Amino acid sequence: MLPLTVGNSRVKEARKLSRRSVRTERRLFLADGPKAVEGALEAGRVVEVFATPDAARAYAGLLTDAPVTLVDDRALASLSDSVTPAGLVAVCRFLDVDLGALTGGSGPVVVCADVRDPGNAGTIIRTADAVAAAGVVLAGNSVDAYNEKTVRATVGSLFHVGLTIDGDTASVVARLQGAGYRVLAADGAGEVDLFDADELLTGKVAWLFGNEAWGLPADLAALADHRVAIPILGRAESLNLATAAAVCLYASAAAATRMGR
Amino acid sequence: MLPLTVGNSRVKEARKLSRRSVRTERRLFLADGPKAVEGALEAGRVVEVFATPDAARAYAGLLTDAPVTLVDDRALASLSDSVTPAGLVAVCRFLDVDLGALTGGSGPVVVCADVRDPGNAGTIIRTADAVAAAGVVLAGNSVDAYNEKTVRATVGSLFHVGLTIDGDTASVVARLQGAGYRVLAADGAGEVDLFDADELLTGKVAWLFGNEAWGLPADLAALADHRVAIPILGRAESLNLATAAAVCLYASAAAATRMGR
Repeated sequence: MLPLTVGNSRVKEARKLSRRSVRTERRLFLADGPKAVEGALEAGRVVEVFATPDAARAYAGLLTDAPVTLVDDRALASLSDSVTPAGLVAVCRFLDVDLGALTGGSGPVVVCADVRDPGNAGTIIRTADAVAAAGVVLAGNSVDAYNEKTVRATVGSLFHVGLTIDGDTASVVARLQGAGYRVLAADGAGEVDLFDADELLTGKVAWLFGNEAWGLPADLAALADHRVAIPILGRAESLNLATAAAVCLYASAAAATRMGR
Repeated sequence: MLPLTVGNSRVKEARKLSRRSVRTERRLFLADGPKAVEGALEAGRVVEVFATPDAARAYAGLLTDAPVTLVDDRALASLSDSVTPAGLVAVCRFLDVDLGALTGGSGPVVVCADVRDPGNAGTIIRTADAVAAAGVVLAGNSVDAYNEKTVRATVGSLFHVGLTIDGDTASVVARLQGAGYRVLAADGAGEVDLFDADELLTGKVAWLFGNEAWGLPADLAALADHRVAIPILGRAESLNLATAAAVCLYASAAAATRMGR
């Protein structure tokens, strides 16, 4: 069969998934590139993989048993927002689960409140995967987890960690506390110094991070059990959100290692 | 005087600074937005501030004694690559110094080898500022420190930390070692576990980070005194470069705090 072209109706239908409203309605999204497609296949979330003939050959090992549809270069490019598409885009089923499914797991829970930048959200999901977090909650008015830029920034980790989407951050915090989590708000004005808090950082912990520009609103920070500040030793006013989250999550992991000795 | 328009020759000349070749020739660059302009003014690097009349009023306190040139909205937008320009762009003199000027200072030195993404480079400079680093070396074939995207990602920190630009990473490592620095390569395959290396992480330390896609080449990693791996506890294959740098730099800072107790 000839590769499908950009005007083909299946390609057109898949392309509509670049719109959030269509994704939300169909509970389907696009995963772009071999790393994301591999994660999606392993997680059993793939409906269909669109691949150029070249990519289908190059990634034949990855695509064994996958439902592959061949498309030409232009059709593939129409499904990818990457500047240099790798030739593979998968249509995937949504992954998000109820918060209860995360709190049953081990590892910290990471709550992002009103995180707007897809690169930050994706990088936090990648870091959460690296520290073996139970999952990530995109809370409040956060960026869409299924946005192509978010998916790409996770580098496959979207398919490894639990994901919850919940518009009500306060209720997420309350439910985590009800499930026995100590909720730690990352807050530059916090009363706890990250470097001096090993006991607080370990055990059943949920980290709460705010928006990249304005941080956590005081009313949300007040709901946490503790507000933890990353020391700023120089003249920077603050840290980038994704790096701040990495510092906090790795501080928890390092403290657990030290206390386990 | 009326605000200058987009066709004015001074505006046109400043606009040319969006090209790396022109920046390098003139040793001038553009700093966009109030945070960057504030840093540039404090550091005494400003040649001229282009401001819209609205911004000149809004930031009057910041601009006291600054050489301000009023421009209209369109002229200002032509000098900014921001989607929503804040109305202030400064023409600034280059900041970079010889490596010898960094090694005279206190705090760690951060070496980026072949870092290509301006967001990563800028975020690393911001984090270096947060941990009171002596400075940042953009080594090898790294992204231009004076790229607008890099400058913006530093959120003013470009003007706070020492900056060195040197195309020869191996020579930078040798000179740091000659100046008494212990050079630590961040390397996923490293023989030292970041969580188990407090003694190595403190004192006169230089951190060496590689490219976002392929990391540090083995020959460069071999030049370092130690190769340090950030533990990956979950299923992520690696961390985002800027987050990995933040984890390493803050691990050093935390170790110094613990050992100083």
